[in-house]
Amino acid sequence: MSTVPLEMSDFWTKSGFRMREHPGYCNGGFDGLHPPSDDDDMVDIAGATLDFSSTDDVPPLSSGVYEEHQSRAGVNGTGPSSLMDPLEDPVPGLGTYEDFNTIDWVREKSKDRDRHREITKNSRRSTAALLHSISDAFSGWLLMLLVGLMAGALAGGIDIAAHWLTDMKEGICLDGFWFSHEHCCWKSSETTFKDRDRCPQWQTWGELITGTSEGAFSYILNYLIYIVWALFFAFLAVTLVRAFAPYACGSGIPEIKTILSGFIIRGYLGKWTLITKTVTLVLAVSSGLSLGKEGPLVHVACCCANILCHLFTKYRKNEAKRREVLSAAAAVGVSVAFGAPIGGVLFSLEEVSYYFPLKTLWRSFFAALVAAFTLRSINPFGNSRLVLFYVEFHAPWHLVELVPFIFLGIFGGLWGALFIKANIAWCRIRKTTRLGRYPIVEVLAVTAVTALVAYPNSYTRMSGAELISELFNDCSLLDSSQLCGYLQPANISETGIGNSLADRPAGPGLFTALWQLALALLFKMLITVVTFGMKVPSGLFIPSMAVGAIAGRLLGVGMEQLAYYNHDGLIFKGWCTPEADCITPGLYAMVGAAACLGGVTRMTVSLVVIMFELTGGLEYIVPLMAAAMTSKWVADAFGREGIYEAHIRLNGYPFLEPKEEFEHSSLAVDVMRPRRSDPPLAVLTQDSMTVGGVEALVESTRYSGFPVVVSQESPRLVGFVLRRDLLISIDNARKRQDGVVGASLVVFSEHPPAQAPDGPPPLRLRGIMDLSPFTVTDHTPMTSPDIFRKLGLRQFCLVSPRVTRRLLGIITKKDILKHMAQIANRDPDSILFN
Amino acid sequence: MSTVPLEMSDFWTKSGFRMREHPGYCNGGFDGLHPPSDDDDMVDIAGATLDFSSTDDVPPLSSGVYEEHQSRAGVNGTGPSSLMDPLEDPVPGLGTYEDFNTIDWVREKSKDRDRHREITKNSRRSTAALLHSISDAFSGWLLMLLVGLMAGALAGGIDIAAHWLTDMKEGICLDGFWFSHEHCCWKSSETTFKDRDRCPQWQTWGELITGTSEGAFSYILNYLIYIVWALFFAFLAVTLVRAFAPYACGSGIPEIKTILSGFIIRGYLGKWTLITKTVTLVLAVSSGLSLGKEGPLVHVACCCANILCHLFTKYRKNEAKRREVLSAAAAVGVSVAFGAPIGGVLFSLEEVSYYFPLKTLWRSFFAALVAAFTLRSINPFGNSRLVLFYVEFHAPWHLVELVPFIFLGIFGGLWGALFIKANIAWCRIRKTTRLGRYPIVEVLAVTAVTALVAYPNSYTRMSGAELISELFNDCSLLDSSQLCGYLQPANISETGIGNSLADRPAGPGLFTALWQLALALLFKMLITVVTFGMKVPSGLFIPSMAVGAIAGRLLGVGMEQLAYYNHDGLIFKGWCTPEADCITPGLYAMVGAAACLGGVTRMTVSLVVIMFELTGGLEYIVPLMAAAMTSKWVADAFGREGIYEAHIRLNGYPFLEPKEEFEHSSLAVDVMRPRRSDPPLAVLTQDSMTVGGVEALVESTRYSGFPVVVSQESPRLVGFVLRRDLLISIDNARKRQDGVVGASLVVFSEHPPAQAPDGPPPLRLRGIMDLSPFTVTDHTPMTSPDIFRKLGLRQFCLVSPRVTRRLLGIITKKDILKHMAQIANRDPDSILFN
Repeated sequence: MSTVPLEMSDFWTKSGFRMREHPGYCNGGFDGLHPPSDDDDMVDIAGATLDFSSTDDVPPLSSGVYEEHQSRAGVNGTGPSSLMDPLEDPVPGLGTYEDFNTIDWVREKSKDRDRHREITKNSRRSTAALLHSISDAFSGWLLMLLVGLMAGALAGGIDIAAHWLTDMKEGICLDGFWFSHEHCCWKSSETTFKDRDRCPQWQTWGELITGTSEGAFSYILNYLIYIVWALFFAFLAVTLVRAFAPYACGSGIPEIKTILSGFIIRGYLGKWTLITKTVTLVLAVSSGLSLGKEGPLVHVACCCANILCHLFTKYRKNEAKRREVLSAAAAVGVSVAFGAPIGGVLFSLEEVSYYFPLKTLWRSFFAALVAAFTLRSINPFGNSRLVLFYVEFHAPWHLVELVPFIFLGIFGGLWGALFIKANIAWCRIRKTTRLGRYPIVEVLAVTAVTALVAYPNSYTRMSGAELISELFNDCSLLDSSQLCGYLQPANISETGIGNSLADRPAGPGLFTALWQLALALLFKMLITVVTFGMKVPSGLFIPSMAVGAIAGRLLGVGMEQLAYYNHDGLIFKGWCTPEADCITPGLYAMVGAAACLGGVTRMTVSLVVIMFELTGGLEYIVPLMAAAMTSKWVADAFGREGIYEAHIRLNGYPFLEPKEEFEHSSLAVDVMRPRRSDPPLAVLTQDSMTVGGVEALVESTRYSGFPVVVSQESPRLVGFVLRRDLLISIDNARKRQDGVVGASLVVFSEHPPAQAPDGPPPLRLRGIMDLSPFTVTDHTPMTSPDIFRKLGLRQFCLVSPRVTRRLLGIITKKDILKHMAQIANRDPDSILFN
Repeated sequence: MSTVPLEMSDFWTKSGFRMREHPGYCNGGFDGLHPPSDDDDMVDIAGATLDFSSTDDVPPLSSGVYEEHQSRAGVNGTGPSSLMDPLEDPVPGLGTYEDFNTIDWVREKSKDRDRHREITKNSRRSTAALLHSISDAFSGWLLMLLVGLMAGALAGGIDIAAHWLTDMKEGICLDGFWFSHEHCCWKSSETTFKDRDRCPQWQTWGELITGTSEGAFSYILNYLIYIVWALFFAFLAVTLVRAFAPYACGSGIPEIKTILSGFIIRGYLGKWTLITKTVTLVLAVSSGLSLGKEGPLVHVACCCANILCHLFTKYRKNEAKRREVLSAAAAVGVSVAFGAPIGGVLFSLEEVSYYFPLKTLWRSFFAALVAAFTLRSINPFGNSRLVLFYVEFHAPWHLVELVPFIFLGIFGGLWGALFIKANIAWCRIRKTTRLGRYPIVEVLAVTAVTALVAYPNSYTRMSGAELISELFNDCSLLDSSQLCGYLQPANISETGIGNSLADRPAGPGLFTALWQLALALLFKMLITVVTFGMKVPSGLFIPSMAVGAIAGRLLGVGMEQLAYYNHDGLIFKGWCTPEADCITPGLYAMVGAAACLGGVTRMTVSLVVIMFELTGGLEYIVPLMAAAMTSKWVADAFGREGIYEAHIRLNGYPFLEPKEEFEHSSLAVDVMRPRRSDPPLAVLTQDSMTVGGVEALVESTRYSGFPVVVSQESPRLVGFVLRRDLLISIDNARKRQDGVVGASLVVFSEHPPAQAPDGPPPLRLRGIMDLSPFTVTDHTPMTSPDIFRKLGLRQFCLVSPRVTRRLLGIITKKDILKHMAQIANRDPDSILFN
């Protein structure tokens, strides 16, 4: 056990090494890596009685819990018992947490409050202190500004690099290899508006080698080089992830949800994870795998925020304050991913965050805006647009169309539920069979299959974002896309009159496109299941939206043709004349995309707001809302978990879903440890254990904290000590304090007991003890986890209601989660961490 | 004391009568109306220890708190002690609350959870029960739909009626008196595009009488008739408010905030308030007073929601569930006021709501959208626009312009702070002097002054919304508005080349407009202070925005002229050429409006989002945000309260601001009642008081609840009984149960004590007792009100930590508020209610 304070991002090597030996991560769980210990947790109990009683075995009581509570957090009180300055660390590492443990929100918030009070008090004394107080107050805003700038800049860089490498698979720019296809042809003077994408400077590999773009040989050459590049990028990505930061794989959102709920995963948001994730994200996207960069951008933004937190003492030293910043960073991530700042803030509020005070809302919004504008000034899409998919529809929708929109919602819900089940099953196979031992082989195999199948079909060959963009697009007359391969009005009637954007019959080009799209839909649906969860950074937003957009566009074109050929039919009569533009297939694609994304993630408000920000028209919110609602209801019927919650459960993180409620009511005594058959609870006594005894007890158990009682004979609860604080303090005392040996008494009471005068001086550790651990009585009902989740506790001590504060046992968050799993007929041992 | 259950909206007559005799309301406080009692409240204490202990003086303990807890809420438990069906009321009125009291969130939520569990359990038994379960699950959505439809329709009606009556002051449509000016001229075929507002069918009163629109006589006639109409409308409004629903005055937002925090004000959201508010709002707006209809629309929407709640048992019977619906209704109100559904939801979240679960977020959004679309299909503005002010700007803004934007923010903050201070001072004068006794005279006087001063100036004569709309507008070439009275390019240079929308020098028309605007600014600033708080419905959004918009437009035109004449100057060089349209005065007006509204209400995110929804362009968010932020910071420097919080405090409502923290830390014992000098606490004993004794105790005190102890000699806490439940139960027992007389024992313990066999049977009231009141020990620190606010308690009982559960005293929310007022050197007796 190290006594050096371990900051989140400093820890990458240690956890990196650990992880490297265990490639199980991203396959569901750090199997056997961190054996679970049975305490040290946050618990959620809903009971009827709260009793804020202080410890009544600790004379004198009038010293008050308050100062004690402060000093245990290493913080100066106003009373005479103050020992330390709240702005300085007394013992390095005291008050920090171990890896894979849950923080104590109450302690962190109390620490921050004390710190704030101290600064305010000082500010009246001198000008320097006043300046310090002002700079402290504005440091939150400055931090948000920096997070926004950094995340926006990184997102811009990722966009540009991914564009360039994606195009690299197909060809090269003769003016310079560092130009992407689009960039290359911008510079060309020979490009006309019609053929924006064709210019002599850009040559496919086949063209470059054979000298001609025609012929089967050139095509096969292109095909092969495409696959080779894809394999190379994928290999690079998976190797870098394995070598530098195993945490860089996946989308990161399940872990960020868990971290925001108060869990500690050191290195998950560190600098090496950031660098590796940024680089490998570009490679993974460029390899053509069916994954998106939007989810991982949330992880990237959170890494930026965590690293920048180190610049400000206020955030560096307080895990609760840091989580406020991380919540805002999650908003920043979505803001730069879609160019939707308001949607990003609501995403953070609805989907990711745990503790989201109003102050954070306002700051998140600020950071999200800064990031969006930074991204726009980098202008990676080359169109000065803020949003990822810019859509402009011309025709309004009709009420009857709600039927197909709801149908798309049902499709999205079904696909979402099915996807989650299939993906979790596949991840479980990966986790339990030999497959998990060969992540590189797995990635290469999936990449090879993807590249092989994707190349011949233009809709799978293009990147997910391009595909969605094309599907959302409304056909204009100039459009050369296959999807707009309608017969021209002139072909139909010789008059040539009528609205040129009116519904038209499908031509052969469109039929080809539809076939290709149907195949692409099938392929995307299958390959995404095996792709998400591999050891490369991979987001789910884009693949889900792509599936939905294809389905929606197919339905939309179908509806359009139906309307064209049956405009006098019962359904279309009155609103669909042949001259009018009555069905917009692009809108169907958009609704389908929302439905599928909703089915997979179970987002609601944030999903609709993100989509609203893409179109900018309130008009289209109703279809989006109808689809998102239907999709959520349908998917919820098959299982209430979204993909992120499912992965959290698969990995065994201690995450308590705020929406969940106990179906059956239990009493605290049913959930408590130790059980009747277990060995008795490991406890410390307040003034009768030696340093050696304490060390032996700590060594022999894996608990993260120990209750302190009066004595073994009179097990009345006095306080609670965290394992980490205990070890650090003893270690520190042995180094600095003279005379502390193994035989020294460890004293938690205020006055040490009378001792032999020749004995070693006692080690007084009252300062690190939580004098007022949260206690419940054994018959407290546990109805809803929600109300006590708000208190943010680590554990409850159970005391007897009859004998004053007789300690009976402990309940940790893990115990609650195990109990809930048991009730739901799931394996209680699937909860791994504390 | 009535035993009939009194629903919120049924109570209008009673409270109406009460209020009629006391015109103090809307002047700040129901002075002396409801004398404060000293208990029955919600308390917010932050302590370190929570002890969920059950009552240990009640044998046998193993019966568990849980079933007991259920049965006290009139709810069936699963255990053998179940007595009642949770879906039926056992005793009418049991479990409801008295007027001007705070609800017990924990009890309400527990009731709802039990109800839900019961329905789920039943649904497995029969198809009918399953259908009931499904309809119950969807009733929330149905309710939201109805609220949206009703509020949208009402808002549309109010818009149309207010338009019509406002125009009525100036003239009449010859085709039918029921047409507004605009409507009248739509129908006219003689109207050209240029003179949309002039048509022969519409005649001013002077024109109608004198036959000509020219001449001083006609003008004076118009002037006089304008004043007469204004006085008539105002008189009607104030008389109707006084006669039918005194609660209909003001904006309603302070009271709704208080109601959402758990306070009961019967009749405040009832049907008579709704009808009166709707009618008088139209009249007040039409009278030309400096007030808006946007704030009161929130009240109207909440009334709709409260009335519609009566259709669904789930919401009718549960105060906590009903408050979820009311939170959504607040969103609906803003949604219809501005056509900004997302802004409305964020307004509800940020500004109004107290308890806002994610489920409510999604439902609010749904309701807000339905309402917005209902309003649009009514199309009251006649332009198919959803938003109140539709703005389209052409030119981007430059970074240098942030300086004037921040300047506008400072102006808004200063004005906001000043306005709050002046308005509160004026309301206090009204409250304490004889002025408050003549509300009709006051309203008529203010209306007369407003009409007299406003008529000659066209910018004050037009309605606030029209003024803002004109100020936000960007000048196009065709614009005939005085504000666009620039010299034409042809006048400047003979070339006539250049962008026709480029900056131009101001012409005489514009100078006149600027003078008029400056006078209008001064007038609006003064008159709004005395208008807000009168006994008519009055909103603050529009007047605040108008002040800001005028200031912004003035600054904008100033900047524009500066740029035109100094385009080679240091500041404008590089981005402001003479041919370019570089300054948009309309944007300045918008930024100013946001700044002033922010200064008055201290809204942040919702303000910016509402403004964003008006423009639809993310580009202009940065100026808005800069102004809103500056404005809030500047205003906060003068006092942290927004106008709504200031009015809450003025009225003495028991509202605990979530943002507030205790500056000094106190112990529970310092806040507790009774004080040392007070008479001892009024308590009930568990099995030694008679019905007569209990009644005498209840009669002699005004407390809303009583602790139950073992006996006077052994004051150990057993439970807590609410006054209302106690009275209703005794009354009910006397009526229905044989043998209950004054000498009957009232028994709260499980087993009645041995009694003389010939005595009357005991009255067993264990069912209505809260067996597990929240308790704290006397030395619990009270640091932050926030963490315990979340628990939603009514009161805490103080117990001794040494002697098991010895009752020491009680802390109510009022005690906390008084304590906070004392610390802040304010009058603690300003807190009036429980």
